[in-house]
Amino acid sequence: MAERPDNTAAISKIRASRAQYADIDALAAGVLSGNRLSLSQSITLVESQQIQHQEEAAALMRLILPHAGGSLRIGISGVPGAGKSTFIEALGSYLTGNGKKVAVLAVDPSSETGKGSILGDKTRMVNLSADPNAFVRPSPSSGTLGGVARKTREAIFLCEAAGFNAVLIETVGVGQSETAVHSMTDFFILIALAGAGDELQGIKRGIMELADLVLINKADGENIPRAKSARQDASRALHFFPALPSGWTPQAALCSSIDRTGISEAWGTVIQFESQVRASGWFDENRKRQLKWWLKESISAELIHLLFNDSNVKNTLIQVEEKVKKMEISVSEAAGLLIRLFRGK
Amino acid sequence: MAERPDNTAAISKIRASRAQYADIDALAAGVLSGNRLSLSQSITLVESQQIQHQEEAAALMRLILPHAGGSLRIGISGVPGAGKSTFIEALGSYLTGNGKKVAVLAVDPSSETGKGSILGDKTRMVNLSADPNAFVRPSPSSGTLGGVARKTREAIFLCEAAGFNAVLIETVGVGQSETAVHSMTDFFILIALAGAGDELQGIKRGIMELADLVLINKADGENIPRAKSARQDASRALHFFPALPSGWTPQAALCSSIDRTGISEAWGTVIQFESQVRASGWFDENRKRQLKWWLKESISAELIHLLFNDSNVKNTLIQVEEKVKKMEISVSEAAGLLIRLFRGK
Repeated sequence: MAERPDNTAAISKIRASRAQYADIDALAAGVLSGNRLSLSQSITLVESQQIQHQEEAAALMRLILPHAGGSLRIGISGVPGAGKSTFIEALGSYLTGNGKKVAVLAVDPSSETGKGSILGDKTRMVNLSADPNAFVRPSPSSGTLGGVARKTREAIFLCEAAGFNAVLIETVGVGQSETAVHSMTDFFILIALAGAGDELQGIKRGIMELADLVLINKADGENIPRAKSARQDASRALHFFPALPSGWTPQAALCSSIDRTGISEAWGTVIQFESQVRASGWFDENRKRQLKWWLKESISAELIHLLFNDSNVKNTLIQVEEKVKKMEISVSEAAGLLIRLFRGK
Repeated sequence: MAERPDNTAAISKIRASRAQYADIDALAAGVLSGNRLSLSQSITLVESQQIQHQEEAAALMRLILPHAGGSLRIGISGVPGAGKSTFIEALGSYLTGNGKKVAVLAVDPSSETGKGSILGDKTRMVNLSADPNAFVRPSPSSGTLGGVARKTREAIFLCEAAGFNAVLIETVGVGQSETAVHSMTDFFILIALAGAGDELQGIKRGIMELADLVLINKADGENIPRAKSARQDASRALHFFPALPSGWTPQAALCSSIDRTGISEAWGTVIQFESQVRASGWFDENRKRQLKWWLKESISAELIHLLFNDSNVKNTLIQVEEKVKKMEISVSEAAGLLIRLFRGK
């Protein structure tokens, strides 16, 4: 007979975590009063994979949601090396210096594969992390893009309920994470650089057209002429894309996170955008659209997750996929087969 | 007691259709021998929504698939008015004139809503339709994009099994249909026009970067200088996008479907592409990727379709969606609720 596994550690961990989250009402009250520890614990709760925690997280979100929505949500993207972290530090400090409360979150579905994560190393935002009016949260360390995105959306709501006026959501600039971040923010900033010549550099396919503002970073010292030329390049490219549904005309501008130039101007552009789209009704309309879109996305992601983690499906999938690639069975037939397996029919 | 409904008409219709498709082996043999009537009937069968037909279609596709794959699949997109139909007629006639067999299909998920359909009016391709080496098939007249895309993919395989060397797949240029067509073709042509000035006109967001070839159409008569300028515009824009995974450098060129200029050059570009990507291995790799992608897409689309057509879900959805928009419940909770309803758990 096999030895009974020793679950003591697991049980005490569960007990501890249950004790920690036992009083969801108290946790919600802490968030609403702006308590940073409560906010941290709440985000940890929504990030947890444990069933028990997920139920508690749902109860927490029910209490929080009526108090969410009060921030400007800013997506910030750019390839690694574009200087996103230093820009966020500069923008964040500018905002807290002007009496705002700033939260910084991240969507980084790649971090589980060890391909590099963002915000994991808090020392990269050493000033902002120490700022009492800023809240810097590392990226959830694992999960699919859908899972990470869900957690980040709920973290936004929690930050808003805790009284933060601006939520900056960084994306690592790989994979599909920009689309996810674009779909949960009001305004999308793309950080770019002048290349070795004077052209724009490091723009991923399909990202340029998500941008409400393209910022040519590192426009300092002898870099300035090249940055100006890259800005013209960006303006031309933005002009080339069809109109945005918001009615906003995307801008291209310069900034230097080191010289701290262009930071207040960038925020001025955000505020100009906000006043325009609040007046037009797009601001509210867009947030409703985003929620509806996320509902469908969440259902889809969750169902797909359930299917591909179903033991019957798992046992058959690779075999079926090979047959499809060899054109031995059609995609439709293979899909039907796997769905019937999943549904037990 | 309610009167028993009179099913005579329905039954005789089913009997007639069963008789029509009774011998799937014979139908497959007809397709493989290049019989146009068998090809037409086979496409009608895969387009049918009836369960009985779907089973027969699956049986047919099993016989057909080993003989599919032998064509170049060309996606052709462009906004309404860009001249897609006349271009397809010109290209198709050029190809049949060079001994090729050409099939023309369409993906037009919007046609169900009456927003205008493509290929529905065959007279638009009057020469090609009458060409014994061409096969012009109107778009399936109803269904979601996923459904229409599936039918079109299976129609491609049927055309290939019937010996067609080139399959041209037109998309109406609205909605998401370009992505679908891009994902089922080897080469993607975007038809554009010079605008009122000399700029490119009628390019939808996100489509430009799918293109392997941008053709500035209607480059004839006094239009030529403006078309040349628009071509430079397109070249610059294509240059701006990052490299394609195929390793191919997208081209921009002129053509006139009326003067029949630029048509053979366009096909030359397709052939140049083909030889490059066959040598690199991308051609086969891409087709395998597409099949794997479509398997996942099909599973996702079918599951979502089943969920949103589930009577329990339907009864609750609008109510839940309103609560989500009003931030009364979270997206996660709403998604979980609807999935549990769907799964009966």
